[in-house]
Amino acid sequence: MTNTYAIGIDIGGTNTDMGLVRNDGKIIAHKNIPTNQYTLLEPYIHDMMECITAIMKENQVEAIEGIGIGAPNGNYYTGCVDNAPNLTIKGVLNFEEEIHKYMQVPVVLSNDANAAAYGELVYGGAKGMKHFIMFTLGTGVGSGIVVDGKLVHGSTGAAGELGHNILIPDGRQCSCGRKGCLETYTSARGIVQTFCELRKATPNYNGELKAVADADITSKMIGDAANAGDPIALKTYEQTAHWLGLAMANSVTFSAPEAIFLMGGPTKVGEPLLRPLRASFKEHLLNIYEGSCDIHVSSLKANEVAILGAAALLKMKE
Amino acid sequence: MTNTYAIGIDIGGTNTDMGLVRNDGKIIAHKNIPTNQYTLLEPYIHDMMECITAIMKENQVEAIEGIGIGAPNGNYYTGCVDNAPNLTIKGVLNFEEEIHKYMQVPVVLSNDANAAAYGELVYGGAKGMKHFIMFTLGTGVGSGIVVDGKLVHGSTGAAGELGHNILIPDGRQCSCGRKGCLETYTSARGIVQTFCELRKATPNYNGELKAVADADITSKMIGDAANAGDPIALKTYEQTAHWLGLAMANSVTFSAPEAIFLMGGPTKVGEPLLRPLRASFKEHLLNIYEGSCDIHVSSLKANEVAILGAAALLKMKE
Repeated sequence: MTNTYAIGIDIGGTNTDMGLVRNDGKIIAHKNIPTNQYTLLEPYIHDMMECITAIMKENQVEAIEGIGIGAPNGNYYTGCVDNAPNLTIKGVLNFEEEIHKYMQVPVVLSNDANAAAYGELVYGGAKGMKHFIMFTLGTGVGSGIVVDGKLVHGSTGAAGELGHNILIPDGRQCSCGRKGCLETYTSARGIVQTFCELRKATPNYNGELKAVADADITSKMIGDAANAGDPIALKTYEQTAHWLGLAMANSVTFSAPEAIFLMGGPTKVGEPLLRPLRASFKEHLLNIYEGSCDIHVSSLKANEVAILGAAALLKMKE
Repeated sequence: MTNTYAIGIDIGGTNTDMGLVRNDGKIIAHKNIPTNQYTLLEPYIHDMMECITAIMKENQVEAIEGIGIGAPNGNYYTGCVDNAPNLTIKGVLNFEEEIHKYMQVPVVLSNDANAAAYGELVYGGAKGMKHFIMFTLGTGVGSGIVVDGKLVHGSTGAAGELGHNILIPDGRQCSCGRKGCLETYTSARGIVQTFCELRKATPNYNGELKAVADADITSKMIGDAANAGDPIALKTYEQTAHWLGLAMANSVTFSAPEAIFLMGGPTKVGEPLLRPLRASFKEHLLNIYEGSCDIHVSSLKANEVAILGAAALLKMKE
């Protein structure tokens, strides 16, 4: 069988990562441009297309099946990025139209968490699954939902925003303007907030992060401290896992998935999060679902999943 | 076009209602048997089939397209009712197998809320919709979810149990053994509990339900009192609407539906529930969904929806 190729693009607030993906899921090569150096779509797409042309040329690839894009607020139906708060290029951005000025190939766009879920389905641990949910933990919390083997886009293209499910009514202030969203508890920022709250409530805390100011704490530091046995860091992950396990159990009442996947920076801590997460999920799961759904960490490499997921989106058109 | 017919069966804990449904959604005739008089499946199905044969004969219908059944804990994949706590016939009940001893027609079974959602899709206000969610309020709270025009059954057949979404962590005790489920706040029982709590907290309450003991209060009484202007009854529905609107807004983050439908006894109160419900839904909805999803009361008659929904299930096999 001859190999085919696609371009997967991961648009983040800081960088835009473009990869050449072979049909077996191998990323042959990739290049970056700095997203936050652009305020207009045209020059951004121009430079993006130069990169893509260069990657193809350098790897002697003459034709691609299409371009898949995972982007914040990416809308599958319109091919647009709709007013993404963390991009320096503002407004409703029609990627599909702009790319077609350079290259007549299929362009598929979706939000980054949907792309990750689809990557897991096509290339990762969800291969062959009909029903699963992906939670992505990062600066925020995203989700992608697969029902009957297809990504759920909903009526507007904006389905799968479980990070903004209100977990604790009147809870923590969320950047979306409402209170108590899952994201405020289980994102990297939420984890830092929990740590700082617990530390403040423990005057005799004497761990390695004692002298670090609240504003300088990162979830990575807390993860390292937890794995070194720091009691407040461990308690932080227990609390985070309690909330996330509850949210995951709630999501099961929706689509009765066979698995829930988890990915993103804050999951790298491993067992200090995963052990109490499995316990909380079990505790909060409605009895009729017992044994029908497991939690898995994404099987894709952290630095590859976004590009693979974006390229995988093209498979939806098949 | 020649008319075709199907049998729709609504299995409740007290009664089993069987209806002959014409393809245009008209219920030609129906009959009941008392579910709670049976402890074994065989005699129950025997009597059910006698009724069905009688209805068909009385209406000169010689052939039916199939039998659709809406039942508590009904499983679409297996054709079985799995250990329904409110049925006097215990265990895993294979309706499909048992019915086939009498009649070789397609048998489709699902839980009652799924059947109601499908009835709304095929015969009611959701006709032509691709994405919507049905909430059914009754003794409990059920839900049926339609994504891409299809009912979501999930990996086990038990998808769509939003009544057991944990709305208030560590909240009211639920019959499922966990705490804070939506059902404990917005079912008929939940509404009665809210009324009794509010009444207790208002020593100067002087409304018409003042002398009625907690155990004798029904949600119907509270509804009538609300429509007569009783302040505690009105406050009860405001509180109920607050919770339900929050749960509905949360459900939108899952599938971005174009509408949410509502049905069941407790909705009959009308505006005392619906006005604050729309306000709470709007208040709790994530901004990206603004204006994309409305709340509707089911357009089907309360005493017909269960039978129509059950009959509609057969359309899924087409």
